[in-house]
Amino acid sequence: MGVVQKAPQRPILSHPHLKLLPTRGEERPARGDPEAMSDTPLSKEQVEALLLRGPFHQWLGLSVVAVGEGTIELKAQWRPEWVVNAERGYVHGGILATLVDLTADWALVSKTGRGVPTVDLRVDYHRAAMQGDLTCRGTVVKFGNQLSVAEAQILDDSGRLLASGRGVYMTAPAK
Amino acid sequence: MGVVQKAPQRPILSHPHLKLLPTRGEERPARGDPEAMSDTPLSKEQVEALLLRGPFHQWLGLSVVAVGEGTIELKAQWRPEWVVNAERGYVHGGILATLVDLTADWALVSKTGRGVPTVDLRVDYHRAAMQGDLTCRGTVVKFGNQLSVAEAQILDDSGRLLASGRGVYMTAPAK
Amino acid sequence: MGVVQKAPQRPILSHPHLKLLPTRGEERPARGDPEAMSDTPLSKEQVEALLLRGPFHQWLGLSVVAVGEGTIELKAQWRPEWVVNAERGYVHGGILATLVDLTADWALVSKTGRGVPTVDLRVDYHRAAMQGDLTCRGTVVKFGNQLSVAEAQILDDSGRLLASGRGVYMTAPAK
Amino acid sequence: MGVVQKAPQRPILSHPHLKLLPTRGEERPARGDPEAMSDTPLSKEQVEALLLRGPFHQWLGLSVVAVGEGTIELKAQWRPEWVVNAERGYVHGGILATLVDLTADWALVSKTGRGVPTVDLRVDYHRAAMQGDLTCRGTVVKFGNQLSVAEAQILDDSGRLLASGRGVYMTAPAK
Repeated sequence: MGVVQKAPQRPILSHPHLKLLPTRGEERPARGDPEAMSDTPLSKEQVEALLLRGPFHQWLGLSVVAVGEGTIELKAQWRPEWVVNAERGYVHGGILATLVDLTADWALVSKTGRGVPTVDLRVDYHRAAMQGDLTCRGTVVKFGNQLSVAEAQILDDSGRLLASGRGVYMTAPAK
Repeated sequence: MGVVQKAPQRPILSHPHLKLLPTRGEERPARGDPEAMSDTPLSKEQVEALLLRGPFHQWLGLSVVAVGEGTIELKAQWRPEWVVNAERGYVHGGILATLVDLTADWALVSKTGRGVPTVDLRVDYHRAAMQGDLTCRGTVVKFGNQLSVAEAQILDDSGRLLASGRGVYMTAPAK
Repeated sequence: MGVVQKAPQRPILSHPHLKLLPTRGEERPARGDPEAMSDTPLSKEQVEALLLRGPFHQWLGLSVVAVGEGTIELKAQWRPEWVVNAERGYVHGGILATLVDLTADWALVSKTGRGVPTVDLRVDYHRAAMQGDLTCRGTVVKFGNQLSVAEAQILDDSGRLLASGRGVYMTAPAK
Repeated sequence: MGVVQKAPQRPILSHPHLKLLPTRGEERPARGDPEAMSDTPLSKEQVEALLLRGPFHQWLGLSVVAVGEGTIELKAQWRPEWVVNAERGYVHGGILATLVDLTADWALVSKTGRGVPTVDLRVDYHRAAMQGDLTCRGTVVKFGNQLSVAEAQILDDSGRLLASGRGVYMTAPAK
């Protein structure tokens, strides 16, 4: 599935220090503060702390399983409010779309150091999602200085692909 | 929702009459029951009752403002869990994607008589959504016997366009 | 076209005046030359001259029917190379996708004064396109200083909707 | 191509065997002829013969490099008509969109035995495509009995990713 990501020829960022080191135990470095940048990649605990600053991310029961260079794996904890069809118990497609969006966005975190604005989102639904926690895998397709493309897959407990898709993200540095 | 991929077992209904009349005061007609079909269009109260059977739709604080032939207008009531960025108060893009999906889906209700599975979804983000209720307008682009395309716009209190997009929906009759 | 990913060096032009006047009878104003900008909107003859500078646009037999503020109507002249299925005579979906892309792009011309790079493109296919010229209608969804969204419909001779879709376009000024 | 919207009249073929064997040296088996199906996968010569039945595919200078189970690699031979910008020599985004569409479509050929109708198409543009032949790699994301999702990457001579994207395809058997 995912697109083969050949290594870029050049150092990725013109803002080469757009990695983010929370200093002095802070989990909330100032947005876009160059002093907060460093070459040390974010740990999964640091990414999870950043991610969970968002109330909707908390509501989704997100946790970070792994963070790599241009990749991420998240878990989302099922809750009964996700259901669209009370009789059959299907999860709403909007929950899956949300997970595709945020997982692709945070696959960029090794380069952006933060969540970034989504320009557009495209989601394919492959199978009905029933009750159960969801696994979310994100991969960068193309990192750019202004716009980037990343993709995500949403899987059920048995590893079956429920939904997948892509977003375009604004990776210009925050003002 | 995930697409149902089994072949339709039953003959395709001719869509000019694919309207659903809840009889005897019932708000929950049997899914796909031909007896429940009639030429009388659903009222907005009937559509709201169908829509609110979904727990996630209740959580989104949805109400139906108007239903027309191939169109719908909904309201969604802001709640603090929608926020992605606690400092700036932006609504999560996943909420807007969810509203695009369900509004386009329910724009089909004058022909489908129910919510139908989403095949895929595409959302463009135009402006950051801040605190406030959202207006959601849906329109059918093309109704087909098996697949249909519909689109939706999400507006803030001042009528500014926040997000818009489209979905492909499975409009073959439910099994 | 591929997106230009470098940061804009120059101040963003205020879009109400981002119109381009070819001076001294030239049909080819310098790209991004501020001297070439004026408040006079481009005529359809001027837009057609700009459009037809592209060899692929010539091959597609394009002509401009009308240009408005954020809208355009084009014609494309059928040619036998467009066919994908020799027996049934269907036009290739790639031709329809191309027309959606360029029509949405040139719907922006009243603001951009030129064709601009496409960031991404989404196309829905509604009916098989048979032999015959095609009508292409484009409309701006949202004009922005850096990114814009526009949409297009492709119709046959009888006004039947064959395909429709949207693109995101780079409307930051050319370097 | 436009989506076929009528209900499938015939039983859905079980896809593990939905392979098509051209018999008696024929390269053009009857569309949907069950006699033409067999367990022998199509060779790349057979796929190329099927592909090149389409006049637009001939115009694009396509050849088949490799065919696998749910994968394909094609080459497209550059031609001067592809150019959108005469000065800079960029290939038109519509050519790249066309290649994404047809490559994803024909990635399904090990299961469909033919090109199938596109429901919708989404393309991301990563870099400007300059003069030169293009490599097109397709992969099935999800094969279904009615609808399938496949994706494609378009690369230049140096293996740089120019564009990538996805389509939804109608994989119900031809009538």
